[in-house]
Amino acid sequence: MSSLPAVLEHIDAHRDDAINRLFEFLKIKSISTDSAFAQDCISAADWLVAELADIGIKASRRDTPGHPMVVGHSDTISGRPHVLFYGHYDVQPVDPLELWHRDPFDPAIEETDSGAVIRARGAADDKGQLMTFIEACRAWKQTTGELPVNITFLFEGEEESGSPSLVPFLQGNKEELAVDLALVCDTGMWNAQTPAICTMLRGLLGEEITITAADKDLHSGMFGGPAANPVRILTKILAGLHDNEGRITIPDFYDGVDPLPAQIKTQWDSLGFDEAEFLGAVDLAVNAGEHGYSALEQLWSRPTCEFNGIEGGYTGEGFKTVLPSKANAKVSFRLVGNQNPLTIRENFRAYVQQCLPTDCTVEFEDHGASPATTMSIANAAFENSRTALTDEWNNDAVYAGCGGSIPVVGYFNEILNMESLLIGFGLDDDQIHSPNEKYSVQSFHKGARSWARVLEKLAENG
Amino acid sequence: MSSLPAVLEHIDAHRDDAINRLFEFLKIKSISTDSAFAQDCISAADWLVAELADIGIKASRRDTPGHPMVVGHSDTISGRPHVLFYGHYDVQPVDPLELWHRDPFDPAIEETDSGAVIRARGAADDKGQLMTFIEACRAWKQTTGELPVNITFLFEGEEESGSPSLVPFLQGNKEELAVDLALVCDTGMWNAQTPAICTMLRGLLGEEITITAADKDLHSGMFGGPAANPVRILTKILAGLHDNEGRITIPDFYDGVDPLPAQIKTQWDSLGFDEAEFLGAVDLAVNAGEHGYSALEQLWSRPTCEFNGIEGGYTGEGFKTVLPSKANAKVSFRLVGNQNPLTIRENFRAYVQQCLPTDCTVEFEDHGASPATTMSIANAAFENSRTALTDEWNNDAVYAGCGGSIPVVGYFNEILNMESLLIGFGLDDDQIHSPNEKYSVQSFHKGARSWARVLEKLAENG
Repeated sequence: MSSLPAVLEHIDAHRDDAINRLFEFLKIKSISTDSAFAQDCISAADWLVAELADIGIKASRRDTPGHPMVVGHSDTISGRPHVLFYGHYDVQPVDPLELWHRDPFDPAIEETDSGAVIRARGAADDKGQLMTFIEACRAWKQTTGELPVNITFLFEGEEESGSPSLVPFLQGNKEELAVDLALVCDTGMWNAQTPAICTMLRGLLGEEITITAADKDLHSGMFGGPAANPVRILTKILAGLHDNEGRITIPDFYDGVDPLPAQIKTQWDSLGFDEAEFLGAVDLAVNAGEHGYSALEQLWSRPTCEFNGIEGGYTGEGFKTVLPSKANAKVSFRLVGNQNPLTIRENFRAYVQQCLPTDCTVEFEDHGASPATTMSIANAAFENSRTALTDEWNNDAVYAGCGGSIPVVGYFNEILNMESLLIGFGLDDDQIHSPNEKYSVQSFHKGARSWARVLEKLAENG
Repeated sequence: MSSLPAVLEHIDAHRDDAINRLFEFLKIKSISTDSAFAQDCISAADWLVAELADIGIKASRRDTPGHPMVVGHSDTISGRPHVLFYGHYDVQPVDPLELWHRDPFDPAIEETDSGAVIRARGAADDKGQLMTFIEACRAWKQTTGELPVNITFLFEGEEESGSPSLVPFLQGNKEELAVDLALVCDTGMWNAQTPAICTMLRGLLGEEITITAADKDLHSGMFGGPAANPVRILTKILAGLHDNEGRITIPDFYDGVDPLPAQIKTQWDSLGFDEAEFLGAVDLAVNAGEHGYSALEQLWSRPTCEFNGIEGGYTGEGFKTVLPSKANAKVSFRLVGNQNPLTIRENFRAYVQQCLPTDCTVEFEDHGASPATTMSIANAAFENSRTALTDEWNNDAVYAGCGGSIPVVGYFNEILNMESLLIGFGLDDDQIHSPNEKYSVQSFHKGARSWARVLEKLAENG
């Protein structure tokens, strides 16, 4: 007889305990991109080691030149499939802090028009999602004394800051980490009623450019005109990156971008994506993307170039007629298909150099480069998991694309020769990376129940 | 017999006392654009009231809705010309502070390759220059018991932040302030050996624009493509403001810009301005200004559009794949001839609006608008003063243009029907508005001696 009903019942009975555990985790300020929070990242890793120990998983903190990894292993039961579960314990910065309506590191349940939510930085990305899996494992262990499959746990603390230690760590621990299949919980539902498995992920190239003109800030009255203004040079460079159709102008940028197969386009069109509602939810109305593509195609299957930050000159209160010495921009590219991030980086940098007056200089900083990934759904784990999700939500689970980038999926593939199964319970309005991030209580609770079901189904893969 | 030799001797004998007084003044952090320093601005005004009292001038602090004015009057001696001396006690912000090699508010004498300098924020702009005049008056009073002309003193504390209180104050005190001629000490020498009287000043229009797209910061993976990016919109707008010849594209922008009279062009060409040296001093080599004009013509007789500050998205350490909600820029225009700043503001704002997608908004903040000024040298005070300067420096004083903007000159003209005589002792490398501002000790000392001579010559105007 299946133990699943008892496992699900255990999750229901201990819902509030699970929320309290998540709150403890959310209180840790594990912002990885800002070195001021390095100690908090260590605390988050230690907290996870203790959580895993609590459910009988041998785990340890594994230090790296950056923030530590956490690795844990369940007791091996021979003859069962072996999966690796990946999540990240680091979170995005919280600025602008004044736009939060509560302390981002003081989690609380809030009632909203669309139900109860857990409000905190990291609630959805990725602490809440990560904990859905741990809670599912806890319920299996406490109900049956074992897990349906063998599980290796891998948690990193640099996902929000380019994962500099991840590739060396995977390369250095191939034998320990290469198993049958990776499970990743960092994606979303199609909507609040419809679970999804993500089978296409965009890649990401992050570049920072700093242009220097004069060797000091100048007075715009005394030098304005003859002296080069780096903000002006930078705006010309950035403005030249898109043409009037919203296409990116870097030479050979679209190499490796294939047209969407008609079959997939038809499936996506049938999802009933409401572009006006999607944009309206953030107070926008006009599709600002590449001409000739629907918003969903743009998000899931087209590359983009975004300006994530820009700074130069006097930006304080009031006015200062300064002619700045430097100007800086952070630029990212979402990549699809077989676009080569390293070639694009090279061509982007050549374009910037070519726009630069001969007496100005530019410095480039590399913030990561990962290609896009497309999963093959031939692996039976995909259809089995889709059935498990459909059972839990009482609604057909869908195969979806994902606008975001989860570079680890590419690394698992290249370094560990391991496919990834991406299941997550985030919603479009979770405001990840923004003020007032939240995670639906339903996502958290039914997410744990979903993983409990998926784990049972994965055992059939054996 | 002229008292001038005794007055000049007095200035020489008390040189160190004068420097110590200036140091006291420089220690006051009177940054007007940042409200955190409002109390320091009051302290600077009070300090000036006490200084004037010390040389027998009845002066008082005159509060305004912003930072206070200081007004003082010498005892009236009938039959003598009456001049108004204007200066400002406020200073620019000091950021980036890390580029200063000493505390900007802890003045010191430093020996440099080009002689001794006074190093501090405001040393040249405008505290040091202002004090050259007060020291000249002190020497006259202490030597002869009176001043050669009747003098009204007017000091403001908002020159570096758009002078919002100045026009209402001039309008409200017309009778008290409208005299024969204004003297303004906020300009420079032609070079370290050649004094100058500035007879052309560019106007200044300051505008700040803030573009809002989505109502919150978004995740560039979840929204990048369809959602408008305000940094991208802003860079397109700014990049469109100059054409490939460096001309400004705002409709009718050049209305009121007349070609430079051949005679003046010839005079300027004969000054031997070394463009390579001028740019080389700040590590530049390429004239980045409007094509077809020399650097000196660009600085003195051509309008410009400069980007003084830009900010949007994540600008901290590391990287954040945010799609920002807002982007902001501070833009200033230097104006010449009869360009109308209000018309240009209107046309600039219309251009910005026209570039904006219909679902985005823009807020404009007004940071002042003043037209250019051209002085008539028919007034004998100009030639008399030029003689005084030539005598002091033993080198022909020149009539020059000035790339900067001194809006008060326009206001004196319009509101008080009063011409301005602009004499100053700043040098091109004073780094005003920049880190490590300095004022040459020679400028300070011979500046005071120059004013002592000019005051005697102005008495002849009676």
